[in-house]
Amino acid sequence: MTAQTPIPDDVREYVHDIARRARVAARQLALLTRAEKDAALGALADAVEAAAPHVVDANREDLERGRSRGLAENLLDRLTLDEARVRTVADALRQVAALPDPVGEVVRGSTLANGLQIRQVRVPMGVVGMIYEARPNVTVDAAGLGLKSGNAVILRGGSAAASTNARLVSLMRAALEAHGLSPDAVNLLSEGGHDAGRALMTARGLVDLVIPRGGASLIRTVVTESTVPVIETGVGNCHVYVDAAADPGMAVRIVTNSKTHRTSVCNAAESLLVHRRVAGTVVPAILRELGAAGVTVHGDEEMEAYAEAAGVAHVPITAEDDDTEFLSLDISARVVDDLDAAIAHIQEHTSGHTEAIVTDDRAAARRFTTEVDAAAVMVNASTRFTDGGEFGFGAEIGISTQKLHARGPMALPELTTTKWVVEGDGQIR
Amino acid sequence: MTAQTPIPDDVREYVHDIARRARVAARQLALLTRAEKDAALGALADAVEAAAPHVVDANREDLERGRSRGLAENLLDRLTLDEARVRTVADALRQVAALPDPVGEVVRGSTLANGLQIRQVRVPMGVVGMIYEARPNVTVDAAGLGLKSGNAVILRGGSAAASTNARLVSLMRAALEAHGLSPDAVNLLSEGGHDAGRALMTARGLVDLVIPRGGASLIRTVVTESTVPVIETGVGNCHVYVDAAADPGMAVRIVTNSKTHRTSVCNAAESLLVHRRVAGTVVPAILRELGAAGVTVHGDEEMEAYAEAAGVAHVPITAEDDDTEFLSLDISARVVDDLDAAIAHIQEHTSGHTEAIVTDDRAAARRFTTEVDAAAVMVNASTRFTDGGEFGFGAEIGISTQKLHARGPMALPELTTTKWVVEGDGQIR
Repeated sequence: MTAQTPIPDDVREYVHDIARRARVAARQLALLTRAEKDAALGALADAVEAAAPHVVDANREDLERGRSRGLAENLLDRLTLDEARVRTVADALRQVAALPDPVGEVVRGSTLANGLQIRQVRVPMGVVGMIYEARPNVTVDAAGLGLKSGNAVILRGGSAAASTNARLVSLMRAALEAHGLSPDAVNLLSEGGHDAGRALMTARGLVDLVIPRGGASLIRTVVTESTVPVIETGVGNCHVYVDAAADPGMAVRIVTNSKTHRTSVCNAAESLLVHRRVAGTVVPAILRELGAAGVTVHGDEEMEAYAEAAGVAHVPITAEDDDTEFLSLDISARVVDDLDAAIAHIQEHTSGHTEAIVTDDRAAARRFTTEVDAAAVMVNASTRFTDGGEFGFGAEIGISTQKLHARGPMALPELTTTKWVVEGDGQIR
Repeated sequence: MTAQTPIPDDVREYVHDIARRARVAARQLALLTRAEKDAALGALADAVEAAAPHVVDANREDLERGRSRGLAENLLDRLTLDEARVRTVADALRQVAALPDPVGEVVRGSTLANGLQIRQVRVPMGVVGMIYEARPNVTVDAAGLGLKSGNAVILRGGSAAASTNARLVSLMRAALEAHGLSPDAVNLLSEGGHDAGRALMTARGLVDLVIPRGGASLIRTVVTESTVPVIETGVGNCHVYVDAAADPGMAVRIVTNSKTHRTSVCNAAESLLVHRRVAGTVVPAILRELGAAGVTVHGDEEMEAYAEAAGVAHVPITAEDDDTEFLSLDISARVVDDLDAAIAHIQEHTSGHTEAIVTDDRAAARRFTTEVDAAAVMVNASTRFTDGGEFGFGAEIGISTQKLHARGPMALPELTTTKWVVEGDGQIR
């Protein structure tokens, strides 16, 4: 714990004032029926779609400012909204409307010996804070998922998307109001910069949950500074272990897909481990495929030798590489002595996201899935499948890499809590 | 966030060293079958019971030190273990053995369109820290619940119970070792004082969860300083609202039982609200019963007048009283205009534990249970029923008043997380 610069009083008051109004709105949202919420989501979608040209105008301001400040090309790409992307974002709201409502679900219940009827019922969290980087689609997604799950949201998006976010939120607030709902269900922290984010994550009692979405350093800051409960998302140092009993062709396909299908995502593989007994037969084929896709191998001595022989770019692995989420066409690679060594290496370096084994050996698969401690453990499948959409959840807030409350892909139910409703006819103890 | 005194390096290293050994032990625990864990629990119970005289000796040291330091009588009582209480503590371990094992439970699962078989399985948290006050039974309970749920525990008990805790933990560690298990499954922070507690709650990556059990100030400290995920427990500013449609006799019984059955517990009522329309008929009878039990009423003007007329001790209510968990023979009491006023008052002052309404009006009950935001909402039942034992959970770690992960009475499943196991035959995206 290090001493922090104090949060300026005016920024704290600005954030707390928004949070207090959000709490009032949250009470209204908690009472809405599914039909009412779905109708509101439809109204938001229509409003966003109808205003697409204005959203694109606002987005252009952000892009111009970003270019003049030398923002990297991939960040500019994430930031960009054209009219087609705006329509996609609006459609996502309609898809959220089509999902089942988690609120009101009875999770369990019973009648006690004394006649008390108890039931545990899903209810909204209340006020949910989201702190994220410059991806304007998250602004609309978070508002939609919040509304569907009966939560008011307070959004603190990356400053590079300030104009786009302001336009989107003002559109959605107007649509809520026109629909007879409180605009304070959706809030944007447009002032106060990082201090506003800090005031949000320390607004205990006003904010029920904060979800950071972004890179490792954003998440570390939120986890360390927050006094509001946090769900960590999205850092994935995912390993693929090719066992002695792996099907060689399957190993090549799974490693290649896990690493190269999309490199910038948290469920991409960052590390390859291969059992020594099959290294000579399977590694050359794997490295040829990775090399063809442009991957650089950060290898131990043996892996470097295989890479050299296969004509694939390689550098010596560093201790740091073992813990690095590259999010690029790089992979760390080691030959390991056996399953024990693979599990021990993963236990030491896992970020708790997704770990995969390729094997036809039932005992090895059972040991791997039991002993490896991660949100998802895969047997003979690409790491890329750890995803709310792939799992059939229909919407995803993020992928939790912590153990409390939610682990793995998070969807609407993870934005709710529960309440015990106890009904009696005069029972006392 | 205020600047903290740094944790001394030697204390941090002491705690981290214990946590690292606990992590190794946790991996062993995670692989044990239910039969193995139940046998170990039996061995712990036998060891504690057989050593009862030694435990009582150690406890005598704590009691003598406590008396010489002027510890309050009720704290000395909580601290005291005689041989009968030691046997009760040992029996609690046997009762935990008899409970179902949460580990391995398949929470949900499906086969995806591409043939991937996914299932969400309960697994242990890993290493769980408990920070609590001078109640030696918690030391044994926490070890037992940890073992049953496959978690290693690190205990930081109140210093007033230092000798008793040291004896109990050393007994349990020896019993684990004699049983072929790692003694590092159960650990006590006996050095480093409060700094050890602080090192525990900031040992991110080594400790998976910290549960504080104790008074409001202990819990506030842990929640504010911890960077490890926390589950808050046990502060209960519980209200009973007597509605216009309440059965008067039932109202008297429920208010009296909620307030006086046991005053020192978190599910005791601390606040009474009565609908104005029935105040004249129901309040005198309620206050007579409370007065007979020795309760002092902290009343608004009307309540003071009723108390005066009934010859019941009373003082004027202060703004602070509305937020006070008395844990004593005191109750704050107000007459309210209607159900709306009652709900608004509770929303403002609830600690999120248990809130009760007494009414025969279905619509009022429905509004109350829907609109009041607390771990448990009761209709026509005493607040004292919010309890793991009463709910049939068989064991209780504490009562969560937060919304993340667990809300209300926590038992064995709340000491677990889940893992997605995904099995394929070569699927890629």
